Amino acid sequence: MINSLKFDESGLIPAIAQDAETGQVLMVAWMNAEAFEETAATKRATYYSRSRQRLWRKGEESGHVQHVKEIRLDCDADVVLLSVEQVGGIACHTGRAHCFYRKLTEDGEWEDVESVIKAPDEIYQR
Amino acid sequence: MINSLKFDESGLIPAIAQDAETGQVLMVAWMNAEAFEETAATKRATYYSRSRQRLWRKGEESGHVQHVKEIRLDCDADVVLLSVEQVGGIACHTGRAHCFYRKLTEDGEWEDVESVIKAPDEIYQR
Repeated sequence: MINSLKFDESGLIPAIAQDAETGQVLMVAWMNAEAFEETAATKRATYYSRSRQRLWRKGEESGHVQHVKEIRLDCDADVVLLSVEQVGGIACHTGRAHCFYRKLTEDGEWEDVESVIKAPDEIYQR
Repeated sequence: MINSLKFDESGLIPAIAQDAETGQVLMVAWMNAEAFEETAATKRATYYSRSRQRLWRKGEESGHVQHVKEIRLDCDADVVLLSVEQVGGIACHTGRAHCFYRKLTEDGEWEDVESVIKAPDEIYQR
């Protein structure tokens, strides 16, 4: 299983989380071997945080857990696609439903086209 | 526009192509600044081929061009999402509709679950 995956020189592979129901691409994060194996075993999306340099159990702070319905691998075995149920309907740390909220306009500008569902300081209470 | 993008240390950014109609994630490839700018200008998906180390105008050999309907950027500005119309209904070089044709089974095996629409040697005639 894990031997099929082609990790990059940092030992990571990109993983796309897609909403199982709507097909919306929610986010892209990275996995190391441990994160992949934990995701496959627990059916809960676990990534590797490059900034924090540790496993990142999606939702561990926010509660916005991703339940994994299906795991796919692409032809080159270097990208993983997760079909997930997004708890809370919020995948992005900005409090939006998903991370791809900036749209390129005809004028070549990036426009925010998705609204914030919940403010980050409400999500990440300390 | 291009200044907002966070390219990696190799000057590349991953780009997801998603079918505009079905929401199917078709493939992931990489773009350098030139590929991104050409994609935005021509509305035809252009990537950077890491193996061939040159611009790769998707469909240049296969005819399986991708017409870009929308370009999105994620919160971290390090992943691009293209909403595309896939000419020929084949995105993958294996002749399948998309690249994510391997599914992880309960036994931890990768199973091919998508059929080949057109054999690669028919697609890539020399």
